[in-house]
Amino acid sequence: MTTTSQDRAAMNGVDVPVLFATLDLVREQQELGEFQFRARNEWVSGTHNRTFVDGFYGAGQEDATRDRPFVLDADHPAVLVGQDHGPTAVEYLLHAIAACLTHGIANVAAARGIELHRVASTVEGDISLLGMLGIDTGVRNGYRQIRVHFEIEGDATAEQLEAVVRRSQDRSAVYDVLTHGTDVVVDVHASPDETR
Amino acid sequence: MTTTSQDRAAMNGVDVPVLFATLDLVREQQELGEFQFRARNEWVSGTHNRTFVDGFYGAGQEDATRDRPFVLDADHPAVLVGQDHGPTAVEYLLHAIAACLTHGIANVAAARGIELHRVASTVEGDISLLGMLGIDTGVRNGYRQIRVHFEIEGDATAEQLEAVVRRSQDRSAVYDVLTHGTDVVVDVHASPDETR
Repeated sequence: MTTTSQDRAAMNGVDVPVLFATLDLVREQQELGEFQFRARNEWVSGTHNRTFVDGFYGAGQEDATRDRPFVLDADHPAVLVGQDHGPTAVEYLLHAIAACLTHGIANVAAARGIELHRVASTVEGDISLLGMLGIDTGVRNGYRQIRVHFEIEGDATAEQLEAVVRRSQDRSAVYDVLTHGTDVVVDVHASPDETR
Repeated sequence: MTTTSQDRAAMNGVDVPVLFATLDLVREQQELGEFQFRARNEWVSGTHNRTFVDGFYGAGQEDATRDRPFVLDADHPAVLVGQDHGPTAVEYLLHAIAACLTHGIANVAAARGIELHRVASTVEGDISLLGMLGIDTGVRNGYRQIRVHFEIEGDATAEQLEAVVRRSQDRSAVYDVLTHGTDVVVDVHASPDETR
């Protein structure tokens, strides 16, 4: 198979020269690597709520390239007394780990000159509701295990393809947070009914 | 203000009798509290990938109430060499924490007979890309801090409203996973190019 220089530039849909230029730039000006991502959420009704994702800070400035917010609905399914207007929050965690690893797989493969034919993954998370329902507070609220299974096909050996997934895992922001946890600060501004 | 029994049943859009009946049922048959959530993701091109969320196991059976999958696109923004077809994986984490806490706030308030007027939150996450780009592997890949700020208005005192948020935080599955981490297993099935 012949690969033209244009194909090479856009290996796996990744603009490899721009990827390497970005890496070089951040290596030289490390403050450009500092990012702040943001979201705002509004309660709709019951367990239904909606998040808007738009601006973020990164590469030394407020990003102005997004012309509209991404809108994400979350709800509980009927069996959890919701109306199923969107995935539950815990399902979004499973999406986040698959998406983060797959972001990385495409980039790592492109940087290594490996053409991918297919990447697909399934994610399962086991969770008991006994803790979060307050029935047995000795049971943790969150997932006790998350399993991600990747199928990866590409123009490389099985060993090279697996190494791409492992490198992505080693560098994944979501994998890091889900396995090691992070500092989460919650603060509250409450506006009571003034007549009380 | 008069509250009819119908309003009371659907306090904050939460069907309170069904919520309490669900709690009672799981308390009596604790195996019903065992859930498995799932997602499947397909790489599209570059950092763009797409997750499908549909079936899950819970309350003793495979759930059959969802008639279509929820579809979630993830991508990197332009500054991170993507095409911005969706939020990044790390932005989905911010959505997940806001959504999970807000799911809980509506339920806890309803269970306590507190009518909510408004719940809104903003989330910020600070992250350095130096680790994930391989420029400084001493820097963690994930968020070093996530901050959630809630505005809550309702028919209760400020203290009662704040207590609703804190109870939701104490029982939140996503808060637990993001602060404590969990076990994440990644396995790979690689299909190499057979001609190599």
